Amino acid sequence: MIIAKVVGKVVATVKDAGFEGKKLVVAHAHVIKDGQLVPGQNMIIANDELGAGEGDIVLITQGSSARIAPGMKACATDAVVIALIDRIDSDGRPVFSKA
Amino acid sequence: MIIAKVVGKVVATVKDAGFEGKKLVVAHAHVIKDGQLVPGQNMIIANDELGAGEGDIVLITQGSSARIAPGMKACATDAVVIALIDRIDSDGRPVFSKA
Amino acid sequence: MIIAKVVGKVVATVKDAGFEGKKLVVAHAHVIKDGQLVPGQNMIIANDELGAGEGDIVLITQGSSARIAPGMKACATDAVVIALIDRIDSDGRPVFSKA
Amino acid sequence: MIIAKVVGKVVATVKDAGFEGKKLVVAHAHVIKDGQLVPGQNMIIANDELGAGEGDIVLITQGSSARIAPGMKACATDAVVIALIDRIDSDGRPVFSKA
Amino acid sequence: MIIAKVVGKVVATVKDAGFEGKKLVVAHAHVIKDGQLVPGQNMIIANDELGAGEGDIVLITQGSSARIAPGMKACATDAVVIALIDRIDSDGRPVFSKA
Repeated sequence: MIIAKVVGKVVATVKDAGFEGKKLVVAHAHVIKDGQLVPGQNMIIANDELGAGEGDIVLITQGSSARIAPGMKACATDAVVIALIDRIDSDGRPVFSKA
Repeated sequence: MIIAKVVGKVVATVKDAGFEGKKLVVAHAHVIKDGQLVPGQNMIIANDELGAGEGDIVLITQGSSARIAPGMKACATDAVVIALIDRIDSDGRPVFSKA
Repeated sequence: MIIAKVVGKVVATVKDAGFEGKKLVVAHAHVIKDGQLVPGQNMIIANDELGAGEGDIVLITQGSSARIAPGMKACATDAVVIALIDRIDSDGRPVFSKA
Repeated sequence: MIIAKVVGKVVATVKDAGFEGKKLVVAHAHVIKDGQLVPGQNMIIANDELGAGEGDIVLITQGSSARIAPGMKACATDAVVIALIDRIDSDGRPVFSKA
Repeated sequence: MIIAKVVGKVVATVKDAGFEGKKLVVAHAHVIKDGQLVPGQNMIIANDELGAGEGDIVLITQGSSARIAPGMKACATDAVVIALIDRIDSDGRPVFSKA
């Protein structure tokens, strides 16, 4: 899984039936560098059924495993938010802690 | 999923039976940078059953999840257009809005 | 899918039973840049059951979707030629046309 | 599979049911360079059911194959620790040996 | 598939049951450049049931297709050696020929 920050959303009227009524968020991949959580290079669009809000740090599963998440079986998704992160520790120190 | 702009099409006579009668578009991946939707580095060929036209900004699912899209079960595809994007918001501001 | 040029072949005697009697081509990924089809950075080995010859521009499906192509179900392949391209249009102009 | 060093952990309360009670580690990909095991560029979050501790050098399977690991069938994971490495040899010499 | 050179091995006592008794090799991806087979940037750990020895040039399948190789069905692997290469031709000339 990758760590990402939810930064926005995507709205689409014409879409596959499997995406009907589903929320799509814009997520900016983040990486841990020198003990800090910093923006990475990739931005991906992911399904979200956990209520992730803008600014939330989340975990995203990519590939066909994304379809194992609740409600995604009939959805042609390749990325889904599978957790809202409370805390990340690296090298014995917290690099992120939810406010 | 990734955001991409449809820029062209591919025509092939000799192909797997699963691609018979299916439309293939050339899609240029786009990324959000400094609040703008700009061309990225990758270009991929994707199936399209939603009627995406040249210039449309779309969402593309990659990998085996692409086969979950309608009509793709028997098609050896690894990329399919799953939505025509109306609007993308990032950091509270619109970065794309369909004309 | 990606666009690639067939540039060679791989011969192997010791191999998985699923590859017995199957042709493997060396394919050089190509990208569209400034309206031209030019060599990219990746080179991959793909199964070919469509009779792709050296110099042919083809479409290649990667990942587990490759096994959906005819004859690949029992083959541990992650890349297969699924079409011999006749023509590619981008931005309203032809970037490739089979001789 | 890739070689990675476990450097931390991720804690999340709001998550998919399939991740309930499962441990998630922060793993830093490592590569062999000039006969040495050195940090690479990627950092991924992986499930761990083998008891990997901070500092351990492990093998991680990515993609949908991760769900074949014990206990992962109903988990939307795309990365799992599948072995705690004792030793790595490259070019006839040990590049890593567990203390 | 990718071309790789077997350069070493990985030994692990604590591992998923699916990897019990299975050999894991360190493989260095190779690419064809200017008519020569040269080392690439990636190094991956792959299952090998074909008896690949150090120095052998092999083909590796990645992703969930790897589990289609003989004996891998219950193994959470994402990379497996599927052939020991005898010869590679590119642009009409041999770039590799087994000694």
